[in-house]
Amino acid sequence: MNLSLSGELGLIAFLSKRLKIGDDCAYIPFQGKTLLLTVDTSAEGIHFDQSFLSPHEIGYRSLACAISDIAAMAGSPLYALIALSIRETADLEFIDSLYSGMEGAASDFSAEIVGGDTIYGEKLVISVTIVGEAERPVLRSGAKEGELIGVTGSLGGARRGLILLKEDVAGHENLKKRYISPVPRIEEGKRLSSYVSSMIDISDGLLIDLYRLSEASKKGMQIEKERIPIETGATLEDALSGGDDYELLFTIPSEHREKIEGLGGHIIGRVIEAKGIFLDGEKVEPKGYDHFNREV
Amino acid sequence: MNLSLSGELGLIAFLSKRLKIGDDCAYIPFQGKTLLLTVDTSAEGIHFDQSFLSPHEIGYRSLACAISDIAAMAGSPLYALIALSIRETADLEFIDSLYSGMEGAASDFSAEIVGGDTIYGEKLVISVTIVGEAERPVLRSGAKEGELIGVTGSLGGARRGLILLKEDVAGHENLKKRYISPVPRIEEGKRLSSYVSSMIDISDGLLIDLYRLSEASKKGMQIEKERIPIETGATLEDALSGGDDYELLFTIPSEHREKIEGLGGHIIGRVIEAKGIFLDGEKVEPKGYDHFNREV
Repeated sequence: MNLSLSGELGLIAFLSKRLKIGDDCAYIPFQGKTLLLTVDTSAEGIHFDQSFLSPHEIGYRSLACAISDIAAMAGSPLYALIALSIRETADLEFIDSLYSGMEGAASDFSAEIVGGDTIYGEKLVISVTIVGEAERPVLRSGAKEGELIGVTGSLGGARRGLILLKEDVAGHENLKKRYISPVPRIEEGKRLSSYVSSMIDISDGLLIDLYRLSEASKKGMQIEKERIPIETGATLEDALSGGDDYELLFTIPSEHREKIEGLGGHIIGRVIEAKGIFLDGEKVEPKGYDHFNREV
Repeated sequence: MNLSLSGELGLIAFLSKRLKIGDDCAYIPFQGKTLLLTVDTSAEGIHFDQSFLSPHEIGYRSLACAISDIAAMAGSPLYALIALSIRETADLEFIDSLYSGMEGAASDFSAEIVGGDTIYGEKLVISVTIVGEAERPVLRSGAKEGELIGVTGSLGGARRGLILLKEDVAGHENLKKRYISPVPRIEEGKRLSSYVSSMIDISDGLLIDLYRLSEASKKGMQIEKERIPIETGATLEDALSGGDDYELLFTIPSEHREKIEGLGGHIIGRVIEAKGIFLDGEKVEPKGYDHFNREV
């Protein structure tokens, strides 16, 4: 092993290499189709907080967030497996509510929960495996110089909603809903799949996920502040650095510009040769990059 | 929800119903094949102990045990996804060794690790999802009255090995190996699949897993002590109630008796009409049944 690796950056690089992960899902040719496989783990105190999320909401989010990895590769979710670590003090009502949330998301996004495994642990940890399929899986690595950078929907709402939930502010239901009930952009991903050259879902923030596209494609990304679609009630900072929006971020040849608008999406910039992320011409470092507690 | 459910028995019944699990894997027709999906979670302090298992051994076991669920349904493993919760104090050497163990098992049993997700947690928890395929998947539910009950290999070695490891007794490497390096019976499962009527892997103990076949098939199971193949150095009790052997337990019409012997397996009893598990004619309750910390 490479002993020069150290600390969290080394760890994530090491794990990524070990797990050979460069996309949102593993994609595998199988019987004439492409199977997509992804696992997403969320833990109490890191990824969710029971003080402002009900068990039903925690269950719903865990499945919806995992399904977004399938959407990010232009796939459709098919099956889910749930590995659960629950507190010994959890009662049936809690577990019933948690599962109802998972089943709600499975039903909303046309997946089927087919199995699971449950153990007792010191805190609630949920690992969701999704098996999906794709006609034309889209990777992170295909962006080419001169292409447009596009995004579905609007950004920053989930981060602003999370802040409002944490601070127990009344109202602003539209923002809170962005955090509580994420909507994986499955249909949008599939419609875009014939045109886009690279794609990712915005789980950790626009700048971070743009950085991932940039690294995978070995291209630079130039975006303009005034083009970024900010959710009503959110700030530019929420949109740039807030995660949990689960919109799709993609690159697309400029002749397909109208496909973005047809989805209600927005063009926010252009793929450039110079490496790095540029905001209004200025190179920026992705902020809030969580080196470990995210999918590697 | 059914409020008459209470305690652990209620919880496992509830989860099983919720997760619709009656077999070792979910099985799904897909493009003319049957996909098998299973997730298996193991945790430090419950399923393994770092005081006598190296990180490499923990990694190896976690994958091998999950793959055994595929063997239990007469399938072949194809892909693995790893969800890992590791202590913040874990170093690269520890993680490298853990992954080497997983990769060793993946290589030994012809599976490929295609992805994963890692978070920090208070203890080591490993969830392994295996995607496999089967030509003729075998369920737990097909046993018919008058059929023979068969088992591959010999039993009790893993339990005896675990006791020796816990007590730090020198020697007895064959027994310790049964615990440390389980061998999922993939080839045996596939060879049996044309003949057997029901099958399961012995993960929790002969009596418990026989009870599961019995419950799923709605038939009784009569076995004879003297026919049980006991691993050299282990006891009858180890063979009856010890888990972790990962041999296959199955029912088979008597005309296929020679198929069992062809595999080096043993006939240990017969499927009967009267419900329950009978040992030398006496009804027994499966001992050591772990109502929660096992796959439901």
